[in-house]
Amino acid sequence: MHLPEPLILLNGSPAAAVSPFDRGLAFGDGVFRTLRLEAGEPVWWSDHHAKLVADCRQLGMDCPRRKEWEQDIAWIAARQADAVLKLMVTRGPGPRGYQVPERPYPTRIVLASSLPDLPDPVRECGAQVRICDLRLGHQPRLAGAKHLNRLENVLARMEWDDPTIDEGILLDGMERVVSGVMSNLFIRLDGAWLTPSLGQCGVAGVARARLMPRLGAREADFGLDSLLRADAILLCNSLIRLRWVARLGERTWQRPDDFDVLMEGLCSGA
Amino acid sequence: MHLPEPLILLNGSPAAAVSPFDRGLAFGDGVFRTLRLEAGEPVWWSDHHAKLVADCRQLGMDCPRRKEWEQDIAWIAARQADAVLKLMVTRGPGPRGYQVPERPYPTRIVLASSLPDLPDPVRECGAQVRICDLRLGHQPRLAGAKHLNRLENVLARMEWDDPTIDEGILLDGMERVVSGVMSNLFIRLDGAWLTPSLGQCGVAGVARARLMPRLGAREADFGLDSLLRADAILLCNSLIRLRWVARLGERTWQRPDDFDVLMEGLCSGA
Repeated sequence: MHLPEPLILLNGSPAAAVSPFDRGLAFGDGVFRTLRLEAGEPVWWSDHHAKLVADCRQLGMDCPRRKEWEQDIAWIAARQADAVLKLMVTRGPGPRGYQVPERPYPTRIVLASSLPDLPDPVRECGAQVRICDLRLGHQPRLAGAKHLNRLENVLARMEWDDPTIDEGILLDGMERVVSGVMSNLFIRLDGAWLTPSLGQCGVAGVARARLMPRLGAREADFGLDSLLRADAILLCNSLIRLRWVARLGERTWQRPDDFDVLMEGLCSGA
Repeated sequence: MHLPEPLILLNGSPAAAVSPFDRGLAFGDGVFRTLRLEAGEPVWWSDHHAKLVADCRQLGMDCPRRKEWEQDIAWIAARQADAVLKLMVTRGPGPRGYQVPERPYPTRIVLASSLPDLPDPVRECGAQVRICDLRLGHQPRLAGAKHLNRLENVLARMEWDDPTIDEGILLDGMERVVSGVMSNLFIRLDGAWLTPSLGQCGVAGVARARLMPRLGAREADFGLDSLLRADAILLCNSLIRLRWVARLGERTWQRPDDFDVLMEGLCSGA
């Protein structure tokens, strides 16, 4: 099988490699985004760019200019029109030690990979999920941001290798539901849509922000009991967009009535 | 000023660069060590190697063989006999997503940099410290390990730029003292040496492990009140080895009587 060379830009240059002194490697000192490139267009780009800027600000970092990202994406799109884009920005190379250089030079990385395989049509096929053993720690200074310190997600993802399990549900140390390992989460409970508040841990994704007004959802703290009592659970992220949960252990759910409308709304959004 | 080219080995090859797909960069999925190279010999090497192996095990990673590290260190030592060595091992490159590749190929990196400037003689000059605002989050699955998810340390180090401040003291979300940003910590309280327990957060360093039996110290949970009430505070890590704290705000301390003996013991240790 022939695999194409992966498309990579590092500070706008093709196929470069990262300095071993980069603070992204040394400390996870940076943030990233994962988004769809469809027919050469980055999906939900304005939202993703705004989130990059906000996450950089949360770490006290400069974010490369929008125009630079857009030039990189155009270069990728000219070579692979449909892909998963990963955008990363780190605080750049620095001498040993935690202290931030006086004038950091951020490292900007854009990677393309293949779009994931999803059941077709995804609307017919609900996700099977499990509850992870790992409990997320609380760190309000980092909560919400998609930073490069993702060992909790790695350890949680290591808990299963059953390919029929699509996602793991993460709780925090207070046994509150937070998110999926790779997705945000909504439940419909007593007729109201809820999504976990993310002030202490978790990543506040772009798909979650787009779904909230459509569902009229509000942020709330809830535990496993509410998850199991919910009459619908939705998972979302910028790649899968939306999936409904069909099974968690013995508990099963049907496809929510409004799933198709929600999915169509997300797919047509700019 | 002429700066020498930094000495870098990546999987045993000089001056290579890191793949943008490396999980060390993507997720901070790896661990590291910082140690002294003195007259061509890595100081406390057996302890550092054992800690590398233990930290890799904590993340469910394979650690490169001891012989490989030793060959790398010998290559550095032949070119720069006195240096700070940084050893890193990541879970290696992988496709997008948190899932660990079936057969990971760890990335092994050895970097050399200059030894830090310390007051001479360090024994005369106590450290000035401050209390950091950032509170460390609890994550027992990662606590104790020196992994590559170090954003908390970066944010804490960003809190001060006064060069007269040598170290920041970190507390956790329960207001318990944990460590310095770059060091472990001991206090002498009512005649007994104590060091914070690190079951929930913090890094359990090699210098701390070496000091504990020499001081007859035990692990304990304590807050700022105990720190201020202590009649001596010591900071340690593998680079500075040992410093005594002279000032925290208005509170000052004298050099502990046994400082010289302790320092000599640490310096003479293999």
